[in-house]
Amino acid sequence: MALSTLHDLFVHTLGDIYYAENQILKALPKMAQQANSEELKEAFQQHLEETRGQVERLEQVFKMINMPAKGERCDAIEGIIKEADGLVAEIDDADVRDAGMLAAAQAVEHYEISRYGTLIAWAQQLDLDDAADLLEETLEEEKNADRLLTEIAEGEINEEAE
Amino acid sequence: MALSTLHDLFVHTLGDIYYAENQILKALPKMAQQANSEELKEAFQQHLEETRGQVERLEQVFKMINMPAKGERCDAIEGIIKEADGLVAEIDDADVRDAGMLAAAQAVEHYEISRYGTLIAWAQQLDLDDAADLLEETLEEEKNADRLLTEIAEGEINEEAE
Repeated sequence: MALSTLHDLFVHTLGDIYYAENQILKALPKMAQQANSEELKEAFQQHLEETRGQVERLEQVFKMINMPAKGERCDAIEGIIKEADGLVAEIDDADVRDAGMLAAAQAVEHYEISRYGTLIAWAQQLDLDDAADLLEETLEEEKNADRLLTEIAEGEINEEAE
Repeated sequence: MALSTLHDLFVHTLGDIYYAENQILKALPKMAQQANSEELKEAFQQHLEETRGQVERLEQVFKMINMPAKGERCDAIEGIIKEADGLVAEIDDADVRDAGMLAAAQAVEHYEISRYGTLIAWAQQLDLDDAADLLEETLEEEKNADRLLTEIAEGEINEEAE
């Protein structure tokens, strides 16, 4: 179906990030299991809980615009996760693997930061202020998750990987 | 070849972003051509020039660590570009297409911001301070490119798309 309006594009991109969040829900338990550092493992587990809430928020936004919550296959997140899986398989040292997984998780966070930033701007343009507010809550969580990962990298992971 | 040290991981990720920058070099002229807004077209053309300089900086970093400049196939950037191409093909309105292309460009910028941030932290950990400085120059350019895109979106593109 062709996209002809900003509203169409908003719905499409909402479906894209809904699909992406669901892929992330599947990837995070595996990442937590593979992490060697307890701190990194906990960060992944904590972000898994957060991601469940973000999926629910997206379902609320779909409801606000009277659309069914439906994922749109997102090649970007598939590529980011495929790259992460390939990298993890290539690393044969547990501390170096932690550094690689942490970097992969930050690539995921940045993808989400960019998508939520876009969705908020479009929601505001479309006068969907309640939707914009909900999406803003998630954006702040993603930015915090990225900052936490940077702190863990600088505090422990990169040094142990060296 | 297995990656066993943080230095191995640094070289691998340098190859990943080198590959990504070269894919972006190929994608940007097409995006500039498809853009309807003159401002967006110019932003893509300007970022094409910048990207050429970023590729050269990566070649300098490879030289600093006595490694040949070699790309590593990067599934993440391939996924991000594939998604952008698919989206552009689905949109049948020129102003809405501009909004979609701008958002896709911001997803690319955020991928790069995450990768350069990681590479800088690893270069510092490995005492490759000159490499870290060069990569920092590129990171600042990517952040500025992202900010410029946000300004263009808020100033013109999103309104015309509505």
